[in-house]
Amino acid sequence: MTLEQALAKLNELQTAQHAYGHAMGVLSLDGDTAAPSASAKGRAETMGYLSGVTYQLLVNDTVKEALETIIANKNAVTPVQYRQAELFKEDYDDSVRIPMEEYVEYSTLITNSNAVWHEAKEKNDYASFAPYLEKIITFNRKFAAYKDDKRPAYDVLLDGFEKGASTATLDPFFALLRTELSPIIKAVAEKPAPDAAFLQQRFPINDQRIFSDRLMQMMGIPRDRCGIAETEHPFTTNFNKWDVRITTNYSETDVADSMYSVIHEGGHALYELGTADEIQFTNLASGASMGLHESQSRFYENIIGRSLPFCRALLPVMQECFPAQMKGVTAEALYAAVNKSGPSLIRTQADELTYGQHIAIRYEMEKLMIGGDAKVDELPALWNQMYKEYLGVTVPNDREGILQDVHWSGGMIGYFPSYALGSAYGVQMLAAMEKDFDPWADVEKADLSRVTAWLGEKIHRHGKLLTPPQLLKNAIGQDFDPTCYVSYLKRKFAALYNL
Amino acid sequence: MTLEQALAKLNELQTAQHAYGHAMGVLSLDGDTAAPSASAKGRAETMGYLSGVTYQLLVNDTVKEALETIIANKNAVTPVQYRQAELFKEDYDDSVRIPMEEYVEYSTLITNSNAVWHEAKEKNDYASFAPYLEKIITFNRKFAAYKDDKRPAYDVLLDGFEKGASTATLDPFFALLRTELSPIIKAVAEKPAPDAAFLQQRFPINDQRIFSDRLMQMMGIPRDRCGIAETEHPFTTNFNKWDVRITTNYSETDVADSMYSVIHEGGHALYELGTADEIQFTNLASGASMGLHESQSRFYENIIGRSLPFCRALLPVMQECFPAQMKGVTAEALYAAVNKSGPSLIRTQADELTYGQHIAIRYEMEKLMIGGDAKVDELPALWNQMYKEYLGVTVPNDREGILQDVHWSGGMIGYFPSYALGSAYGVQMLAAMEKDFDPWADVEKADLSRVTAWLGEKIHRHGKLLTPPQLLKNAIGQDFDPTCYVSYLKRKFAALYNL
Repeated sequence: MTLEQALAKLNELQTAQHAYGHAMGVLSLDGDTAAPSASAKGRAETMGYLSGVTYQLLVNDTVKEALETIIANKNAVTPVQYRQAELFKEDYDDSVRIPMEEYVEYSTLITNSNAVWHEAKEKNDYASFAPYLEKIITFNRKFAAYKDDKRPAYDVLLDGFEKGASTATLDPFFALLRTELSPIIKAVAEKPAPDAAFLQQRFPINDQRIFSDRLMQMMGIPRDRCGIAETEHPFTTNFNKWDVRITTNYSETDVADSMYSVIHEGGHALYELGTADEIQFTNLASGASMGLHESQSRFYENIIGRSLPFCRALLPVMQECFPAQMKGVTAEALYAAVNKSGPSLIRTQADELTYGQHIAIRYEMEKLMIGGDAKVDELPALWNQMYKEYLGVTVPNDREGILQDVHWSGGMIGYFPSYALGSAYGVQMLAAMEKDFDPWADVEKADLSRVTAWLGEKIHRHGKLLTPPQLLKNAIGQDFDPTCYVSYLKRKFAALYNL
Repeated sequence: MTLEQALAKLNELQTAQHAYGHAMGVLSLDGDTAAPSASAKGRAETMGYLSGVTYQLLVNDTVKEALETIIANKNAVTPVQYRQAELFKEDYDDSVRIPMEEYVEYSTLITNSNAVWHEAKEKNDYASFAPYLEKIITFNRKFAAYKDDKRPAYDVLLDGFEKGASTATLDPFFALLRTELSPIIKAVAEKPAPDAAFLQQRFPINDQRIFSDRLMQMMGIPRDRCGIAETEHPFTTNFNKWDVRITTNYSETDVADSMYSVIHEGGHALYELGTADEIQFTNLASGASMGLHESQSRFYENIIGRSLPFCRALLPVMQECFPAQMKGVTAEALYAAVNKSGPSLIRTQADELTYGQHIAIRYEMEKLMIGGDAKVDELPALWNQMYKEYLGVTVPNDREGILQDVHWSGGMIGYFPSYALGSAYGVQMLAAMEKDFDPWADVEKADLSRVTAWLGEKIHRHGKLLTPPQLLKNAIGQDFDPTCYVSYLKRKFAALYNL
């Protein structure tokens, strides 16, 4: 095969993979947001079929030869072409080891299990979800062994979401969070709680929908390229930079719930919306890693969204959307309320200080699940036990316990640590940004354009062109250092709680 | 190829075609209801790519041989298998004559032109849509010639939507509607108009959304299998009987607008929801023809939905959803208001009596377009001239004129006559139904279960298993006779207007 033929094959593969990825992405989005409940079975069959086709498109000898030809000719191709081939080759290597029937079976399982989880959560019925979770765990263990049977399965899975992550680096990371933050979590718990009751009045969902539009406007999200839909568990999905979707979930009695979902998912969206034109419709479009993606979502959600300057910008908008509920509230009161800290049950509603402990629990759970040390029917009790141990809270039911998150039902075992890593990356990005300009005067004026432009330049535009470690170093100008994250949290919450 | 191999190939084709049809259907639905505006280009590329794949799946020698093998062995296969092969062979014959590049180019054109039409309508800008319409007309003319260059192109297109339809049958049909109905349309116009102002107050869209759910409930539409979304031009789409979607468009100042859209699309949905389990995921699932589909939608919309018994059932629901607006309204007043008749501009809002004239205009326009007797930039003036001639109304702008309907932007030239044919079929179905039981006592109690069961048995469950003429004969027990339709309209409107 000539290099020219190999590059033509690469382009052909990009076009096909984008089309199938787009189709399956929309099927999945529709399934989560608009489709009637009985549609799940038909969708699972279609997804299974299309997964099989994409597998065959990638895993064949012509593609292998084309990718190897391009990689062997590194100096004769552009860096973009080289990186495209390199990433496809990684996918190829991962996929070729998985027998096609297992791949299709797993895809169908995931589509079905997602629907089952939705219903199980609604009905607080862990038992109906357990057989699916068991199969998902078994598949993940098996797939990890196919990829690399020399390393522990969980390390292989972690690496799939965040290149280079392993229990060797994460064990000390989570230990640091626990050792350093437990004292301040305890100290905060002894202080009087700020008033947050004004956020928990009745907020009609239709008013919240209008508020979501205003929030997206504040974030500078171009609405001709980004939609919003409603779902059980909020997520962001993207097909190209001209078609990104966020989702949210409205609670009629808690306005902060959807508000911070929108800002969090809006952060993911800004990442995707900011990828460069040249890499669209290729495997380089889209964020570099899950940790880097979460660094963006949690940057907007917490570092910006839960700052005093942002609360100053937010307050008049909230007062416009919810005049009765927000009457007489000050920016300082809003800032205290949205940073109200305390042990809680639900990860997505956790405050910034205790959030890492929620992740630590999931990390420990996943180690047990994949390590094979826990049976599936023992997991709820283990979950509840860890919540008692780490956060001192009693889990009243599985709906607010082990069934709360969508991830495992979607096969994402090893994803959770990305949230904590991303939070830590974000703090180092803030430090680097503050060396270049003062973001806070802008934020207070509800102008995030310079903030987003800075992140766009350092992170967003690159897509997957750089490896995650290169990209991170590029953005923060130094090595990863989780003590920055810990110091930031200590400083912020000491000030908030007069410690 | 053995018969066994041929049947295996048929099954394989069914699975693939369903998967691609499902994926493209959801992409299209999402594009019309939820996707951000800038997403159109990426979607067009994906749709074009997937269209190419489905073309290649059908148009190849193995498939041809398999289909011919099954057709040649009629007595050795089941009627279902035979009919599947027969329908695929028709598609094959139609497709094989269209060069693949043209097919893909046309699919991409359609996706783009739909987005362009949306914007052109919004901005009342026919000129921006005209080049797309011109290309669509040219493609349709060319495709018709590929199919059969011995018949006039428009006849070939008509036949594609309603097997057997041609100008030879439709010219006298529309002439009958014009001759027989013009006098009564004129007589009605001279009578005082009933009060319909109570339907044109402010109806908040959120209240209308709740009302739509109630309407779907009244119609007995199972919501676990049927969703509702919002779009510019309402339509129904279906992927299988467990996944049907209707759409509507709310006017804040006219409650009847969306109300009759929901009932109309609900009629389409009941057809799809009622197809037999055994034919799901095959090319036999889905309605038999466009005319038969419209017979169902317009049966529920007009024959049921604009009847006095239905108005009696509807009134308390409307009064519950819109207590202030509907206060003091009687069922008789509602019946008179929803049947208020008069020449108008917008087809979808036209009353039952004048509706046929709107279709006749489109039929004449299409004859001119495809016959090549009119240039694309002359079409708006021709449209306006015909509205003056047929209905005596002056079209103030293209938005309310030639740009009002979605069909042509989607490549559907030859579809419109189906609405009029369907309306006429429906009247004969009512006559047949009334021989079996009295539907009106049920309708007055808001119980449509027997009505839907009757139509389900006669029409819905069969899908495409029977040919459209067989199915129609099966349902009405006699030949098609448009004078029944004319008599029904005369009788109904004479009584309403005391003529």
